[in-house]
Amino acid sequence: MDKTIVIIGAGNVATHLSMALKNAGYPILQVFSRKIDNAFTLASLVEAKAIDKLSDIEREADLYIIAVSDVAIGQVVEAMPEVKGVVAHTAGSVDMDVLNRFARYGVIYPFQTLTKEKELDFRKVPLLIEENGSVARRILLELANAISDHVQKANSAKRKTLHIGAVFSSNFVNHLYAIAYELLKKEGLDFSLLEPLIKETTQKALTMSPIDAQTGPARRGDRAVMERHKELLNSNSFYHEIYSILSESISKMYAD
Amino acid sequence: MDKTIVIIGAGNVATHLSMALKNAGYPILQVFSRKIDNAFTLASLVEAKAIDKLSDIEREADLYIIAVSDVAIGQVVEAMPEVKGVVAHTAGSVDMDVLNRFARYGVIYPFQTLTKEKELDFRKVPLLIEENGSVARRILLELANAISDHVQKANSAKRKTLHIGAVFSSNFVNHLYAIAYELLKKEGLDFSLLEPLIKETTQKALTMSPIDAQTGPARRGDRAVMERHKELLNSNSFYHEIYSILSESISKMYAD
Repeated sequence: MDKTIVIIGAGNVATHLSMALKNAGYPILQVFSRKIDNAFTLASLVEAKAIDKLSDIEREADLYIIAVSDVAIGQVVEAMPEVKGVVAHTAGSVDMDVLNRFARYGVIYPFQTLTKEKELDFRKVPLLIEENGSVARRILLELANAISDHVQKANSAKRKTLHIGAVFSSNFVNHLYAIAYELLKKEGLDFSLLEPLIKETTQKALTMSPIDAQTGPARRGDRAVMERHKELLNSNSFYHEIYSILSESISKMYAD
Repeated sequence: MDKTIVIIGAGNVATHLSMALKNAGYPILQVFSRKIDNAFTLASLVEAKAIDKLSDIEREADLYIIAVSDVAIGQVVEAMPEVKGVVAHTAGSVDMDVLNRFARYGVIYPFQTLTKEKELDFRKVPLLIEENGSVARRILLELANAISDHVQKANSAKRKTLHIGAVFSSNFVNHLYAIAYELLKKEGLDFSLLEPLIKETTQKALTMSPIDAQTGPARRGDRAVMERHKELLNSNSFYHEIYSILSESISKMYAD
């Protein structure tokens, strides 16, 4: 019989994971969110029941996926009833052992930037798996392989390093794009002007290594440009400080 | 008769520009660099004469391209002999008027990250042009269109904003990749693990706008994760500070 699943959370990760599982033929029994409206939104997409009390959780599911913010994982674990199925969280920086009040548990960490409104091919999303034993391993690997072509094992230490790498190379990179977007918009310039540059930067870093690919005023030690840029950024203390610290960090990396 | 060109500088921009011009059939007469070895390296690629004294510059060329660091442009301008041809610099953040001791002058700014060792299709490099009159306009547009399909006019103010946007979305982005590279390397993890994430991040920012595409702990306000990450970065004060300021800047952007 098909494995049955309960999803705890209704955010970006919960949405993409439950839709991928549903599309692979696994019934989603329930979607939990503290905000019942959010639970309804996702539940209706995956034909599940929406709940907003953890005590209402179905006890007989095969897998419980906790896809909530890291700080909420502990609260969910405490409030959940006893269950026999496998309990897994989806967080990059949380030890698997936070789940050790359950008998069978693990982690299924999608190593990708996921936004509800943005579709993507989930088969290409790397899934990093950790588990506490053979039952959890069997269930997690079966489901992970059913939805992704890039399943690999990663213990908690490795996962944490990858998560922090992801913050720098995805979350922070996107924020720098957002700053460029705002700076151009203020002068009536379209962000799309940066498209060839952004694409080449990414491609260069992936083919040459980012250490060798570095260019720009800080790399050249061009203090005159850097001073002028900082003057232009004087009206925004965050942008000014980000410019300074990143330039100094580049200088330091290549001074050694 | 074909326009003749003198290249002042032998760095990344000088190399890509002179090779593109040479390939388009324009003779490069001379390559100047203060370091004669660098002049020789580029000169041999484009069949030009290497020189290391500005007083040796050929007086009858049609175009003189000054592709040196911003701080050196003023020194080059002062030391150059009188010439009748068009003099153009290639800098994003330097006013065109730095060249006003010449009769005909302008700017040809390649809006792309260029590294000597990395080939790229120069026809796709946007070239931003500014000039002080019809002769400079005619020469610069002819040569720019001969080597790129993306030639457009941009005055000094517009060019400066684009340059600072480029520093954030290319130079600084690459540095964040370099930091992720170092962090992963220390744990024996390969940078290529980040490839799907890096590609999706770029594609999302370009299709959705980076403002809407933001994800991650700072966007979610997940203080527990951020504190743990900062602890992991304690051994490198630059990485720690970069993590803090970028996280705060994200929080601020979405708090408004």
